Amino acid sequence: MLGRCRVVLVGTQFEGNLGAVARVMRNFGLSDLRLVAPEADPRSAEAHRLATQGASVLDTARVVPDLGDAVADCVLVVGTSAKTGGPFRRQPARPAWEVIPLVLEALASGPAALVFGPERTGLTNEQLTRCHYLLTIPADEGYPSLNLAQAVAVCLYELRKAWLLAAGPPPARDIAPHELQERVFENLRQALTEIHFLWGDNAERLQHALRHLLGRANPSPTEADILLGVARQILWYARRHGQAGPDLSDRGS
Amino acid sequence: MLGRCRVVLVGTQFEGNLGAVARVMRNFGLSDLRLVAPEADPRSAEAHRLATQGASVLDTARVVPDLGDAVADCVLVVGTSAKTGGPFRRQPARPAWEVIPLVLEALASGPAALVFGPERTGLTNEQLTRCHYLLTIPADEGYPSLNLAQAVAVCLYELRKAWLLAAGPPPARDIAPHELQERVFENLRQALTEIHFLWGDNAERLQHALRHLLGRANPSPTEADILLGVARQILWYARRHGQAGPDLSDRGS
Repeated sequence: MLGRCRVVLVGTQFEGNLGAVARVMRNFGLSDLRLVAPEADPRSAEAHRLATQGASVLDTARVVPDLGDAVADCVLVVGTSAKTGGPFRRQPARPAWEVIPLVLEALASGPAALVFGPERTGLTNEQLTRCHYLLTIPADEGYPSLNLAQAVAVCLYELRKAWLLAAGPPPARDIAPHELQERVFENLRQALTEIHFLWGDNAERLQHALRHLLGRANPSPTEADILLGVARQILWYARRHGQAGPDLSDRGS
Repeated sequence: MLGRCRVVLVGTQFEGNLGAVARVMRNFGLSDLRLVAPEADPRSAEAHRLATQGASVLDTARVVPDLGDAVADCVLVVGTSAKTGGPFRRQPARPAWEVIPLVLEALASGPAALVFGPERTGLTNEQLTRCHYLLTIPADEGYPSLNLAQAVAVCLYELRKAWLLAAGPPPARDIAPHELQERVFENLRQALTEIHFLWGDNAERLQHALRHLLGRANPSPTEADILLGVARQILWYARRHGQAGPDLSDRGS
């Protein structure tokens, strides 16, 4: 379904950006690229150098004279802008993470377009008024203007993310059940007592600290088994070698 | 607070990428860039051409010989990878939108690093095992490898988004710096080797599993000290009682 999402570049000035946009479209499973009156040449060596495995996207890009032609069949058109506010005729731009889910929704019905303006000037107000929504990538006020291909990357990342998350929850991670975790703590407690690490007034405090630390890591069953193995090995070692009994006067810590 | 987030580029090969990364860092309000043994020259004209207003980030980038130097003071280190799975010694990579909120949380406590590998090869397994989490940007299986600067853009976008959406900064938790965590791992490794838990073919797998488990828990400095104490006690005990040498024929586990 992401393949229905179109990227429209208006008046692009740098060949490298054409290539980098083609590459990231390929990265995120898109292929429908339209170039509105580009200044840069999509067939240039520099464009192809940066497209790498996205060359096919570049080669099949359609060049059209104006924005209307590029989005005529789209059910949703989203314009991008580095500015969040604007003159009276512009609607306020909303952050990418609010607009992109609307794009995903629209793709169920037909093609939707993300429109990016020329590097130096961005889309004109005339072009922005043609868009259903304005999208911005919130950035530092001192220098909010992202590189064109990076802006495309962020939008397509957000789109793929929305699509993946809509597909259902990710597979669960396997976490050791509470009972097994308790067995780990108990075995570690015994082992560390045996080698006199847990000893005297501090024993309880140290024991709880270890328990909290390990609990926070949510060990998997395999990891819990490894910890059990550590505890058993300490016990085995201590019982095998330590029969003489410890001399606590020279404890190691 | 986002200014505390460090970008670490390992062995970067293309000058343009150095510049494009510096620019997008400036866009998202970051300035701490570390270059680990870069192949490309950060002072080159091409790097500066792409940095545009991010030139100051490029000019103040520190060049260091290896990854450990770049992240020594970090409370959280996140490695990036285009691969989601991996060989036995790697933890699975999690999507950017799951890992980045953890970075934001860590930034309340101290510097955190996002680590990106060389363009052609990515980070080595050795480097990835140094990281607390592996982050991936889910992309099309046919061509999942994003351009380096675009991958940085996506991560920093997600970070700024998480920051903007957070009602306020999360309360600071005291997390042990990477260097101290490394010392913990090293001491545990020695101790578990001494008692023959780490032994033979499985040693490396077990060692990495323990490292991932503990790394995930983000130990506090106090907790790290406790773990160091455990390791030293095992060593002390083994050296005191085990001089006779082990008889491996009846190992405990």
